[in-house]
Amino acid sequence: MGEFELIRRYFCPLAEAGSSSAVLLGPGDDCAIQRVEPGRDLVFSVDTLVEGVHFPRHYDPEKLGWRSLAVAASDLAAMGADPVCFTLALTLPAADPHWLHGYARGLANAARSFGLSLAGGDTTRGPLTLSLQVHGTVPRGLAICRSGARVGDYVCVSGTLGDAGAALNYLDSETPGPDEQSVLDRFHHPTPRLSLGVGLRGHASAAVDISDGLVADLTHILEASGVAARIETAHLPLSAALKRIAGANAVSLALNAGDDYELCITISPEAWVGLPEDIRRQLTIIGEVTFGEGLVIERDGHSQAVVAGGYDHFRTES
Amino acid sequence: MGEFELIRRYFCPLAEAGSSSAVLLGPGDDCAIQRVEPGRDLVFSVDTLVEGVHFPRHYDPEKLGWRSLAVAASDLAAMGADPVCFTLALTLPAADPHWLHGYARGLANAARSFGLSLAGGDTTRGPLTLSLQVHGTVPRGLAICRSGARVGDYVCVSGTLGDAGAALNYLDSETPGPDEQSVLDRFHHPTPRLSLGVGLRGHASAAVDISDGLVADLTHILEASGVAARIETAHLPLSAALKRIAGANAVSLALNAGDDYELCITISPEAWVGLPEDIRRQLTIIGEVTFGEGLVIERDGHSQAVVAGGYDHFRTES
Repeated sequence: MGEFELIRRYFCPLAEAGSSSAVLLGPGDDCAIQRVEPGRDLVFSVDTLVEGVHFPRHYDPEKLGWRSLAVAASDLAAMGADPVCFTLALTLPAADPHWLHGYARGLANAARSFGLSLAGGDTTRGPLTLSLQVHGTVPRGLAICRSGARVGDYVCVSGTLGDAGAALNYLDSETPGPDEQSVLDRFHHPTPRLSLGVGLRGHASAAVDISDGLVADLTHILEASGVAARIETAHLPLSAALKRIAGANAVSLALNAGDDYELCITISPEAWVGLPEDIRRQLTIIGEVTFGEGLVIERDGHSQAVVAGGYDHFRTES
Repeated sequence: MGEFELIRRYFCPLAEAGSSSAVLLGPGDDCAIQRVEPGRDLVFSVDTLVEGVHFPRHYDPEKLGWRSLAVAASDLAAMGADPVCFTLALTLPAADPHWLHGYARGLANAARSFGLSLAGGDTTRGPLTLSLQVHGTVPRGLAICRSGARVGDYVCVSGTLGDAGAALNYLDSETPGPDEQSVLDRFHHPTPRLSLGVGLRGHASAAVDISDGLVADLTHILEASGVAARIETAHLPLSAALKRIAGANAVSLALNAGDDYELCITISPEAWVGLPEDIRRQLTIIGEVTFGEGLVIERDGHSQAVVAGGYDHFRTES
């Protein structure tokens, strides 16, 4: 099977998902064409996943299909963007139909679930590497950036934190118990908070998605906004499963482990009160924005100033 | 040096090239933001280059910087798009400052030359792989697609063909003569035909860039348009350097070798007459669009029907 036939067979059905009316021309030409409605701006982000770095070798292709689009779409959620379409740059060592079938199935499920249609891509031979670029739109001026946090804002997070990080211990488990399975689901099947992001548009002052860990990602907001923050570990939202399997380590996982793909936002107390109840219910206030720089973590009555400890692919090089 | 510092140091200056007023938010947030003017559509394309597949191992990083953006921008040229910005998904085995400095310099030269500013990206550790997505815009309805060729149209190509293919024999040459150097320049320093593409908007009926070879890429137009074509090898534009170093093999290189990044277009005889002289001068008529399907090559009075013979990364798998 040639490259073009391979692409057609597995990936062209993905062009049907999402708000395809905005994609005037999908895969198969030199470029794709997207119409951006007047009064809206295009927002876009690219994420690369490398085998052995971002996912284990011989990782289930269907899970990878979901995961690769979910982590990219999570950046749209953090901007408050409405999802539109994506491109897939797929480098793989061989045109293995089993792998392609599984990957395309997982990707198709994610594409339909997130409302993102495949608009184009490139398929090449080489070590397994996936770069997905997601496109969304926001009404002009309403994108939620990292730089808008102001002193006095609440710091909030969505969902629960630390689950995906705890799952790393059980990836090879053949008979996971219900708690282990619960955190494994968070790792294998992350859900970008797209509707929450849209709901926060015009309310949140800043947002970031938690891919590298709460401390690292919140620090991005603080640096971009020129402010500091204080958070209280007692307020961190922890799942019952995480508390049971991680015990005293649960807080550390919630602070530093990545891969949860929840949102961390800042919002003024006035805007918080004005949030629709169904949006507020998805968030937990864990601290507040303060003057200065850096992050202070309050734990059991002790304060600790922290340096960003997120995952940095090249830090070992220095 | 950490990943973020590394990216800032080498790549943030690239955000200054191009029509940066359209990029409202560049690298550093969860997403970039691009404004698409009312009355225009976004066009975009992603291209991946893998070490050892698309360029030799230990290839000069500065040449790679230019080349990686040029091959992506060539797809914008084929659509008749005005260039705006690009994203870079860079996977590299180590944060080697020498490599990064050279790559960023070549990329910056290309970005300035093509009018493309860096809007975002992702840097990860892994086998050397580059995925660049280029963004441009076209006035609504004026993108030049592959599907518009009509019976009776001329088939035209820009520049000269086969030079980059001939260069493959001299990549390791330590003392290339002037002809060898001339074709090596075509390989190392391809120039996307961006202004030609814009000039063809509203005139050409179909276009493709020649990345895989004339026969393969023209066949894409024929299949997408549901037509056939006849071309005459005596009309193929060959450089004097190619004729001297390739001799009788020059025509075959012009037909089948890739990497030239010229444009192949179709255009009606009426539109051809209406082309501005400076646009027409960049093109050579090599044949015509006919009824049916497939491509017929006329050579020395003989006709040959051909099957697409372009490079297909996965064909050996079948």
